[in-house]
Amino acid sequence: MTVPYEHLREDFKILQQHVNDEPLVYLDNAATTQKPEAVLKALETYYHTSNANVHRGVHTLAERATTQYEGAREKVRRFINAPSTAEVLFTRGTTTSLNWVARSLGDLIIEEGDEIVISFMEHHSNIIPWQQLAKRKGAKLKYIELTDDGKLDMDDAREKITEQTKIVSLVHVSNVLGVVNPIRELTDYVHDKGGVMVVDGAQAVPHMPVDVQALDADFYAFSGHKMMAPTGIGVLYGKRKWLEKMEPLEFGGEMIDFVELQDSTWKELPWKFEAGTPNIAGAIGLGAAIDYLENIGMREIMDHEQNLVAYLMPKLEEIEGLTLFGPKKASDRTGVIAFNIDGVHPHDVATAMDMEGVAVRAGHHCAQPLMNYLNQPATARASFYLYNTVADADKFVDALKATKEFFIHGLD
Amino acid sequence: MTVPYEHLREDFKILQQHVNDEPLVYLDNAATTQKPEAVLKALETYYHTSNANVHRGVHTLAERATTQYEGAREKVRRFINAPSTAEVLFTRGTTTSLNWVARSLGDLIIEEGDEIVISFMEHHSNIIPWQQLAKRKGAKLKYIELTDDGKLDMDDAREKITEQTKIVSLVHVSNVLGVVNPIRELTDYVHDKGGVMVVDGAQAVPHMPVDVQALDADFYAFSGHKMMAPTGIGVLYGKRKWLEKMEPLEFGGEMIDFVELQDSTWKELPWKFEAGTPNIAGAIGLGAAIDYLENIGMREIMDHEQNLVAYLMPKLEEIEGLTLFGPKKASDRTGVIAFNIDGVHPHDVATAMDMEGVAVRAGHHCAQPLMNYLNQPATARASFYLYNTVADADKFVDALKATKEFFIHGLD
Repeated sequence: MTVPYEHLREDFKILQQHVNDEPLVYLDNAATTQKPEAVLKALETYYHTSNANVHRGVHTLAERATTQYEGAREKVRRFINAPSTAEVLFTRGTTTSLNWVARSLGDLIIEEGDEIVISFMEHHSNIIPWQQLAKRKGAKLKYIELTDDGKLDMDDAREKITEQTKIVSLVHVSNVLGVVNPIRELTDYVHDKGGVMVVDGAQAVPHMPVDVQALDADFYAFSGHKMMAPTGIGVLYGKRKWLEKMEPLEFGGEMIDFVELQDSTWKELPWKFEAGTPNIAGAIGLGAAIDYLENIGMREIMDHEQNLVAYLMPKLEEIEGLTLFGPKKASDRTGVIAFNIDGVHPHDVATAMDMEGVAVRAGHHCAQPLMNYLNQPATARASFYLYNTVADADKFVDALKATKEFFIHGLD
Repeated sequence: MTVPYEHLREDFKILQQHVNDEPLVYLDNAATTQKPEAVLKALETYYHTSNANVHRGVHTLAERATTQYEGAREKVRRFINAPSTAEVLFTRGTTTSLNWVARSLGDLIIEEGDEIVISFMEHHSNIIPWQQLAKRKGAKLKYIELTDDGKLDMDDAREKITEQTKIVSLVHVSNVLGVVNPIRELTDYVHDKGGVMVVDGAQAVPHMPVDVQALDADFYAFSGHKMMAPTGIGVLYGKRKWLEKMEPLEFGGEMIDFVELQDSTWKELPWKFEAGTPNIAGAIGLGAAIDYLENIGMREIMDHEQNLVAYLMPKLEEIEGLTLFGPKKASDRTGVIAFNIDGVHPHDVATAMDMEGVAVRAGHHCAQPLMNYLNQPATARASFYLYNTVADADKFVDALKATKEFFIHGLD
């Protein structure tokens, strides 16, 4: 198997360190990703040359900052193939994006007795906003079941999504199961029934080509920090027909046309939703991250992760007492692999692996309903990205075996 | 007059450039401030050594990131003398902070017929959230008048704030008038009447010592980017007794204890309000900015700005046809100076001054009701900070005179 991106590791200084006297193998990319020097350089250059508030000034720095900030929006638009920058809102991250939709779209279209459909594989950020909306409005929240191999049960989806369904909100790629859901097929079904389709793309956009027009979803949310951009910046794509009708969630400077004493009018899209000083440097950093990813190619990144999964799966399946979650076929998934070792708590697994320099996560992964569904209190999770190599995969397997030996047989 | 901070300019690379062939004189600090190398270095170091998601991992990087993120919260707590880090919430900025209070506290305590009191010198971010709350609830929004010299009219404040007043939200330092409002006196009055006091501190915390316990306000909001920190991070301080009763505004990962299918329970403060991955690097950068400011001293920073204002005012008052807004006495204000030249549109003023390398802002400064109150369509505004010198002040006066000459007498 080839390791096409070995040379890219030079771009990630953080990966060139030892942790607990072992070379760091960072496998927690579903939580957050590392940043290439190009992104850090973009931040530094912005702060060294152009930092000013946007949209408000006629002086040179303010014009530079505005051009770069709106330039980043155009990069995002092109990256996800949105029809217009008016439909690309900068937010703090996926969580904010999904909360905005649940509150503003929810206030607009949800009435007592309406149904909202999500699934058992959702992240808390795509569960609780809908729970709270359902509670506020007296609506009903329904969950789509999963198949035994960790996919959405499409028969159940067709049963749960009915003419009563006003909103369906589903994850594109599960942060635990790694599975890629058939969003376009689901969107068509939702639209047939007259519903609105919302997609949590936090684990998809960083790892595969995403074309929001091809998916046809009404809303699509993702985060910068999971795709090599700085923390504190994310995106909400929404179709203009909805965004125009929706009320903004935050009110303040520069999202207005006119402020009278008792009421105000809003600016046109996308600025209607962007009250206050945005995360200007974060947006510019996201633009630089997109440049970096596009230079490699999203199809290539997906292939790389699926190659690593295909390489790993047989090795993992050989390990006795290891339970793997999600589909086994690499082509059904990205580089997220959740697992448990029989008789060993996942926190102990993560701690022991950290002693070997291997950073994996353990816990409920902000998906408690999925943990209950899988009948697991928690799982460990390794999540791979572009800069992870076959050597990382080997080290992961070795550390896993050593961890299992240690806990099962102790120090004897 | 001494220029104690001349040597600090080395810390701000962006200030060492020419704009339109003139040395840059950056006087737009009320919009956003420049970042010292120490803050940029803190970002770089975080991304080079410790970047991981917080609160969720047992691996080494996750522990480092969590320690640094929570360490930044402790720095903020100490900086504003909050009783506890439970009362220090990280937000995207002042606008988000004020919107959270208006929505969550508003939902908790405002009923039809209740009164909310703000003033004519508020920023849109401290107007529109209350307008929309008043509209949602059928409450009444009242405005405190200003005196002729640009201060809050305290007699009118005492008239407007009554037993019907549930919330009073006031700016600590006006972003146009530069005036410092007597928050403690007002807070005592509001509390006497049984109301809740909210303070917009965006223009205060960067420029003077702020002690939230001494002010006794129930909520206090400010932004990082206006105090040398990165964009995309801000703070909401709130008294525990309120924050505990208030519902979070965003729902998602890690702000929960338990997520059941139809409802969830929230974590303890402050995490209850921090759904999703926070702006980790932004918070750490804010911590570094606080270190930088504290190393100089907030009292010293205020003195420096007031010295610059005292130096400037007589020179500005000499210029015929120049209108200055806000109090004239330096001790009543910070380094924000709004002005207009008779017969010249403020946008033309800002454009002409930019040609001289002097960055000032022009417009409504997100304070349209104040512009109407002052009977001005817009103003120009110079705003000084720590790194501005007497030379900057002189250059500002020279550029102002040249601009006036140019527009009044043209090129003859």
